[in-house]
Amino acid sequence: MTPRPSEFDLIAEYFAPLAADAPGAYGLGDDAATFAPSAGCELVLTVDAIVEGVHFLPSDPPADVARKLLRVSLSDLAAKGARQRGYLLTTAWTRETPVEWIAAFARGLGEDQSEFGLSLWGGDTVSTPGPLSFSLTAIGEIASGCMIRRSGGQAGDNIYVTGTIGDGALGLKAAQGELDAPVQDLAALVARYRVPSPRVGFGPRLVGVAHAALDVSDGLMADLAHLCAQSDVGARIDAASVPLSDAAAACLARTPALIETILTGGDDYEIVFAAPPDAAGEVDSLAKASNLSVTRIGKLTDASLGISAVDVNGKALTLAQKGFRHF
Amino acid sequence: MTPRPSEFDLIAEYFAPLAADAPGAYGLGDDAATFAPSAGCELVLTVDAIVEGVHFLPSDPPADVARKLLRVSLSDLAAKGARQRGYLLTTAWTRETPVEWIAAFARGLGEDQSEFGLSLWGGDTVSTPGPLSFSLTAIGEIASGCMIRRSGGQAGDNIYVTGTIGDGALGLKAAQGELDAPVQDLAALVARYRVPSPRVGFGPRLVGVAHAALDVSDGLMADLAHLCAQSDVGARIDAASVPLSDAAAACLARTPALIETILTGGDDYEIVFAAPPDAAGEVDSLAKASNLSVTRIGKLTDASLGISAVDVNGKALTLAQKGFRHF
Repeated sequence: MTPRPSEFDLIAEYFAPLAADAPGAYGLGDDAATFAPSAGCELVLTVDAIVEGVHFLPSDPPADVARKLLRVSLSDLAAKGARQRGYLLTTAWTRETPVEWIAAFARGLGEDQSEFGLSLWGGDTVSTPGPLSFSLTAIGEIASGCMIRRSGGQAGDNIYVTGTIGDGALGLKAAQGELDAPVQDLAALVARYRVPSPRVGFGPRLVGVAHAALDVSDGLMADLAHLCAQSDVGARIDAASVPLSDAAAACLARTPALIETILTGGDDYEIVFAAPPDAAGEVDSLAKASNLSVTRIGKLTDASLGISAVDVNGKALTLAQKGFRHF
Repeated sequence: MTPRPSEFDLIAEYFAPLAADAPGAYGLGDDAATFAPSAGCELVLTVDAIVEGVHFLPSDPPADVARKLLRVSLSDLAAKGARQRGYLLTTAWTRETPVEWIAAFARGLGEDQSEFGLSLWGGDTVSTPGPLSFSLTAIGEIASGCMIRRSGGQAGDNIYVTGTIGDGALGLKAAQGELDAPVQDLAALVARYRVPSPRVGFGPRLVGVAHAALDVSDGLMADLAHLCAQSDVGARIDAASVPLSDAAAACLARTPALIETILTGGDDYEIVFAAPPDAAGEVDSLAKASNLSVTRIGKLTDASLGISAVDVNGKALTLAQKGFRHF
């Protein structure tokens, strides 16, 4: 284990390079960053915090911890229709954190910065007795007034999701040794849990098309409930139409009770959105243009009908667990 | 002790009211906030993290913990010449954190929001096994291109500080029972340590006047060294001219060795800045207009002369401790 560098050396060695492409980050050599949104645009800001032992495990690969932290925020921006521009990061390290762990964490951020086209703008590095904890503020931009809210859904809108649902929650079970599946399926699910794919290419295309949207982080049913609450509508989901990966479909075929994990588990980081029926063709075109599968899974209804998921016979599923609770 | 409410109840009860005045916060009912800077302005962003047991004590009043967290960021914005507009907050609570503690923490934020004219725009609430930890991203705005950098200082510039120096570090000693002083002096110093006064009225007036600035958080000599490093200059401080509160002056008179604590201790949250000699009159006028004492304490020099603090006889003081190190 290499001796621990000072705070200033850590920043210079591992984090300042992540700021090299952002003129307003001043090489992390000042007290604040500056940013001017493009003409006609406004800022979109979101923040997430993660704690070792709660949101990630000490044994998780540090690059994956970093990438997931960044991607979770990018997912929020994408679901709102915004384009990512930069981020601020706080890191709380223990005296025992190996410098190799920090280096790998920074390397993960660097890889994702290249993939998603944004830069580190600033941050704060502090000491903690443990657990490790991090927070990340992501900044994006969008044409002024165009953020896709949770609140615009209308009864009669189609409900769509991007990608596949349930892999995150099944991946967590797999990582904890609680899922019985072929080894390649376990690996695929764990990979999706550890490193989600924020839909940054698709989300901004939904501006002006989707009435309401958010990303699936707490679980499909819980996040749909957030949308319904803000839009004052109900929802009816056809459980059989919820798109599954091959690995998730195989798990569900073996253990039908996993439908609950799939519908209510968290960590999917797909976009769930509502769009009017006359936008169905445009949604399909946008999905095709983004090379992304987008699936209609149900309809928004009158608020009085509540929120339900029904099976192929139209019978409502009973879901005990409503989604991830942070306490 | 009241039973712990859910995450959503906590937010609705204690934090959503802090967002009521910011239309772009959407009542904390969406996934992101929006903000458009005023015409001709750009955003200035800074973030700080604090950890219980490292940056504050479990016995500290929760409202003061919150107010200091906010004020430390406001101090950064002010030293850069920016005007504060809003902030994002992450909170990591344990299952045992009394709801009364959380309520008092939020109350502290609310009081300071009123005092400083900004709003909560968003955040994230997570669980931790402990210690409590928080991060705060502060967003301000400034005329584009006008942020006061660390890097603009020139040899020959006068060095100034606002307010008084050393109260924060002496206050920490006092809070830890390590300072011998009359009880009213101890109380005054502890109060300054717990709740600093960010110079938000004065900092923005320095735009176009100061060549370089930052706030005194790591300690006067260390922060001056940051300015000198970025500006590629040296500095010579007249120790006797460093402004002291009555309480700090009395401590120093009793224990002359405390000059080291005063010059190198952290947590002052005053602004140290460099301005050319021909701006001396304007600096005095701005200070008067802000009803704030601003004191000339030395001069920037050629880089080759290094950074020194000299006594009344012009003899360099030997300062072992260069300032707060975060590890």
